[in-house]
Amino acid sequence: MSSAHLPECPIPIFTTVASYREWRRKAFDAKQTVGFVATMGALHEGHLALVKRSLAANDLTVLSIFVNPAQFAPHEDLATYPSTLPRDLESLSAMSLQVKVQGSNEPLTRTPSAVFLPTVSEMYPSGISQDVSLQKGTFVEVKGYGHQMEGQSRPTFLRGVATVVTKLFNAVEPTQTYFGQKDIQQALLLRRMTRDMLLSHPSPDKLHIVPTVRDPASSVALSSRNAYLTPREREVAAPVLHAALQIGKSAWQDGASKQDCVRQACALIMDMAEKLNAFDNEEKINVRLDYVEMNDTESFDVLPDNISRVQWDLEGSEREGRPVILSGAMWVGRTRLIDNIILGDTRKLGIIE
Amino acid sequence: MSSAHLPECPIPIFTTVASYREWRRKAFDAKQTVGFVATMGALHEGHLALVKRSLAANDLTVLSIFVNPAQFAPHEDLATYPSTLPRDLESLSAMSLQVKVQGSNEPLTRTPSAVFLPTVSEMYPSGISQDVSLQKGTFVEVKGYGHQMEGQSRPTFLRGVATVVTKLFNAVEPTQTYFGQKDIQQALLLRRMTRDMLLSHPSPDKLHIVPTVRDPASSVALSSRNAYLTPREREVAAPVLHAALQIGKSAWQDGASKQDCVRQACALIMDMAEKLNAFDNEEKINVRLDYVEMNDTESFDVLPDNISRVQWDLEGSEREGRPVILSGAMWVGRTRLIDNIILGDTRKLGIIE
Repeated sequence: MSSAHLPECPIPIFTTVASYREWRRKAFDAKQTVGFVATMGALHEGHLALVKRSLAANDLTVLSIFVNPAQFAPHEDLATYPSTLPRDLESLSAMSLQVKVQGSNEPLTRTPSAVFLPTVSEMYPSGISQDVSLQKGTFVEVKGYGHQMEGQSRPTFLRGVATVVTKLFNAVEPTQTYFGQKDIQQALLLRRMTRDMLLSHPSPDKLHIVPTVRDPASSVALSSRNAYLTPREREVAAPVLHAALQIGKSAWQDGASKQDCVRQACALIMDMAEKLNAFDNEEKINVRLDYVEMNDTESFDVLPDNISRVQWDLEGSEREGRPVILSGAMWVGRTRLIDNIILGDTRKLGIIE
Repeated sequence: MSSAHLPECPIPIFTTVASYREWRRKAFDAKQTVGFVATMGALHEGHLALVKRSLAANDLTVLSIFVNPAQFAPHEDLATYPSTLPRDLESLSAMSLQVKVQGSNEPLTRTPSAVFLPTVSEMYPSGISQDVSLQKGTFVEVKGYGHQMEGQSRPTFLRGVATVVTKLFNAVEPTQTYFGQKDIQQALLLRRMTRDMLLSHPSPDKLHIVPTVRDPASSVALSSRNAYLTPREREVAAPVLHAALQIGKSAWQDGASKQDCVRQACALIMDMAEKLNAFDNEEKINVRLDYVEMNDTESFDVLPDNISRVQWDLEGSEREGRPVILSGAMWVGRTRLIDNIILGDTRKLGIIE
């Protein structure tokens, strides 16, 4: 994208790694910290919550907008993924945060410092095909952690994410970075990748996870893909996913086995699906359960069917106090929605309160 | 390895990423450039030639010694790979180079600045198995460039190299880095990886390739694995590999087809193998050809059988002036030797004269 085609924006926009680096070098020289939020655009309050965290804790804040072909399978929604660049830039330009700085009485007003908006060829110098068998060039894979949960439904998704985020980290060189809890497996996998790869920008302890932002009325997790939903799909069908996870959570707390928790959650979604699929008029909504599951936050392994909370959290065991992910995915029409709840102490996952 | 068990050495040795980083930060602050040479130890004149290049062109020079399990297959020689740490450190401590610095009449004497000597668990925080099917954690793969040449004989070798060198680059953060031409596929693949990954430490144009250093008497390429050879294997059998490549080169220059060049080179090795295998006494040496091949330096693709130099280098074609790799591997007893010659202008590959 040449800068001539970019919307007007008071925040500097860098479309090449080289131009961004000049800016970044000055920040290094001035010993300013750089917070980083990686996005695919179509910004919503969930993204802005990440930016706010970054503004609060860093001298400078960079947001990237890049729709990454490598994380979409050929049959997925790359071509139609929502793009709202002018509105995204407006939202960012309107953001500011007053922070107290050590050694000063005057609060400081911080605003987003830069937008990194690279082209596909800038990010993939060897080119990129969505067909994995045709791909050439360098890819990053976190083996053993990419085939469960989202990785089971979307086999190359997490490899695409690990690859593009490695590149973004190398280009942006953030001091700290912020990912949303909504993609919990992605966030935990990226933290492992950061540690395995011995990265210093960011170091693993500087990869923060920020709680999912939800629509206050329906508790639906905010997502760029919610834009695909019709008003009726959003109001009637979408909320069932979070409600199902809440039922699973409540059963877990009451001592039910994992299998029972998952069954109760699935039942709610399937009941709703049956009702909405049964209409033979414009009120019909095709709802389909993809999965609900409970997974270990360390290995992402599925919990054994018969295990209950007390057995999982056994005093003195190495698992004691280790949180569990209760997550699910469902289709509403042609839109795939995901959500998760952490069972246990979220601070143990580095989720910011 | 705890520093208590390290040999005495005037050069600072860092066994952890964290301790190295403190040192590296000072170099960043002082705006000193850092040259880097990655090794598996068992240093020979080939390694020292890389160090000399680094001393000549950087304020500081770091050498790493790390025998990387991920680039050895289970049946390969990880357990017996030569280790000569005390001698390596002596060789490095004895090195110095006088350089002329801009703006000063007095020459400056540079010596190696630091040795990075990490443990396996420091480099692989998620652990590392040599059995690829058991591996967990983050791996880097350069797809489309790792299955030819050395990658055909050693399917996981280049993946192991790309992974460990990414980690070393992230830990060491070199301004410039130096690899030997002897592993030409590795060097070119790492340059592509550096570009694909948008690395700035080093940037792709700061990854330099240094010509293979050879034994002056026999022209055998120096290699740590030469230590496995008996004196007779080294004197009688080993030189045939380079001689075979020279025959192939000469045939190519005379206009022979690729197929003929390769045949002539193979014939020399197989004739020698037949002679040495025929002895029924202690003079017998088991020599076995692995491969001789000619490959494109861009794609690593095997050249078509019938192509000749003039057809390859066709005026006005996109291949015009593009060098070709003539490479080979052979077994001498239980030792696998490799070598290569570049046909064409080595400067086009960034090989330092």
